[in-house]
Amino acid sequence: MSEKIESQTVTMAHGAGGKQTSELIDKVFAAHFANPDLTADDAAVLNPPVGKMAVSTDGFIVSPAFFPGGNIGKLSICGTVNDLACMGAKPLYLTCAFVIEEGFPMEKLEQIAEAMAKTAKEAGVRIVSGDTKVAGKGQVDGVFITTTGMGQIEDGVQVGGELAKPGDAVIVTGDIGRHGCTILLAREDFGIEADVKSDCAPLWKTVEAVMDTTHELHVIRDATRGGVGTVLYEIAGQSQVGVQIDAAKIPVATEVQGVCGMLGLEPLYLACEGTMVIIAPAEQAEKIVETLHQCPYSQNAAIIGTITEENPGKVIRMTEIGTQSLLPQPGGELLPRIC
Amino acid sequence: MSEKIESQTVTMAHGAGGKQTSELIDKVFAAHFANPDLTADDAAVLNPPVGKMAVSTDGFIVSPAFFPGGNIGKLSICGTVNDLACMGAKPLYLTCAFVIEEGFPMEKLEQIAEAMAKTAKEAGVRIVSGDTKVAGKGQVDGVFITTTGMGQIEDGVQVGGELAKPGDAVIVTGDIGRHGCTILLAREDFGIEADVKSDCAPLWKTVEAVMDTTHELHVIRDATRGGVGTVLYEIAGQSQVGVQIDAAKIPVATEVQGVCGMLGLEPLYLACEGTMVIIAPAEQAEKIVETLHQCPYSQNAAIIGTITEENPGKVIRMTEIGTQSLLPQPGGELLPRIC
Repeated sequence: MSEKIESQTVTMAHGAGGKQTSELIDKVFAAHFANPDLTADDAAVLNPPVGKMAVSTDGFIVSPAFFPGGNIGKLSICGTVNDLACMGAKPLYLTCAFVIEEGFPMEKLEQIAEAMAKTAKEAGVRIVSGDTKVAGKGQVDGVFITTTGMGQIEDGVQVGGELAKPGDAVIVTGDIGRHGCTILLAREDFGIEADVKSDCAPLWKTVEAVMDTTHELHVIRDATRGGVGTVLYEIAGQSQVGVQIDAAKIPVATEVQGVCGMLGLEPLYLACEGTMVIIAPAEQAEKIVETLHQCPYSQNAAIIGTITEENPGKVIRMTEIGTQSLLPQPGGELLPRIC
Repeated sequence: MSEKIESQTVTMAHGAGGKQTSELIDKVFAAHFANPDLTADDAAVLNPPVGKMAVSTDGFIVSPAFFPGGNIGKLSICGTVNDLACMGAKPLYLTCAFVIEEGFPMEKLEQIAEAMAKTAKEAGVRIVSGDTKVAGKGQVDGVFITTTGMGQIEDGVQVGGELAKPGDAVIVTGDIGRHGCTILLAREDFGIEADVKSDCAPLWKTVEAVMDTTHELHVIRDATRGGVGTVLYEIAGQSQVGVQIDAAKIPVATEVQGVCGMLGLEPLYLACEGTMVIIAPAEQAEKIVETLHQCPYSQNAAIIGTITEENPGKVIRMTEIGTQSLLPQPGGELLPRIC
């Protein structure tokens, strides 16, 4: 690894395209991201994926940029890798574009780059190209990162929001709402002491393990903005089916449950960044959950409901005492800047 | 095209991932970007390029977002398409990620989307996937756009900053410094009245025409941040050659020359967004310039110098009266937020 950059903070010169920009790229970004496909030119030259290619882009503006369980760097890799995984695509390449506020601490930028490199490595994706812009103090809040991922869609897998079928099982890969709850607590001073950590994690290997178990999968979707509730409404609409969930079976960490109780929040609408919804034929469900329990980020996976012919476009919640109620449709302003 | 969006400004709800986000995407973005490859899912599913793939990403934070000759939308397509073109790659697919300030006028966002669609069409590239985030008032200055482009590298073309050879001709595809000069005048109140317009343009078809004329090309590079002077220094360094330019032959628009004279600026360091440097064997140079003169954005193309064995890593300027001087190496803080 090359020597450390001297400047303590990011300056306008680091974004001007000259000597200082090169130094920032070499000593902070390239030093961490180094791999044979990383380009120093305007564009990376790559072997394209075989078969079909999946492409996804995501902008990350999470505030605060550092939170229990991760930082904006880790999140910017997870978010895009998970979007590819939801299409059954193995992540191959990733680009990242930074907009950094003048005066941003160099040490924090290093930590972000380090987290990106570590997470990319874990996800098996190569960072191939980047861009750095610096905006004046007050023109951007800290650091924003946009990542774009390219993946190779695995043969024989066809998933999509419109493919849920009556009788299918609804699975969540882990306990829900942790990312949203973490950001909320990190941002607002509620005077609540709770040991909540974001679930932020790269899930390609989890999806791969599930696909190795069965190719009979109908929908895979990560429950980010809007949480599991929003995702279920999207699927209900796209597939024109009903979704019936069993409140007692939804895994929620005790500490998240506690915070939600105190603040009157519904965990189903809190964002996850390392938890997916999987919809698959009922006869595959047990096998899928068994596989998930063996993966590091899905030990709390559970079957939480079924797809129904009745109530198309709606999500119905069965309560512990046997009553049914309509889950209110999400809308309006949720907690902003959670990703 | 679908009906207009009702909201006059962008609100936090437009970035929350729910109903209002879908409405913004459908009525503002998808309405303009519509094409068979545009996805509504987390990732687009695409046919990969044949042969080698070029991938480039760029963040755009230009201030002001609207300027004579273009806006941030047009620029965000040109910048990435031109980066691909510099690698001899035909642009195929493009993703775009928006970060929008709460309260941003919807009408302006529509104009930006319209400019993006128009420029993408002209460049022959399809917008395949996008992302929309909204940051609170004062957390981002207006709108930032990150685009990532994927292209197919044309057979038999091999260009790169390290391939310039002594004896090669140095060509610019148009008059220089117009974008930087335009942004400077749009931003600062110098009390100068000058009819300067940005050169912002998509150059793939220009590069394609040149490649149809000859495959004997050594370097193609767009002269964005830092201008032609910075690009020549980069090439001199990468190829370990000298660059000798003839001051009298450098095309500069009269109005740009005038502004530079008044403000004491060097046009060689002002950004271009639709002008490239091409380095090719001397015997191909006339033919290349003839071709360029027939393309819409390169009617002022000119041979401005030669690559030399002497003075490796340096750029030497021959003045009109026959003297030689070292072009000072660019560095430090140039005009920020020009792209």
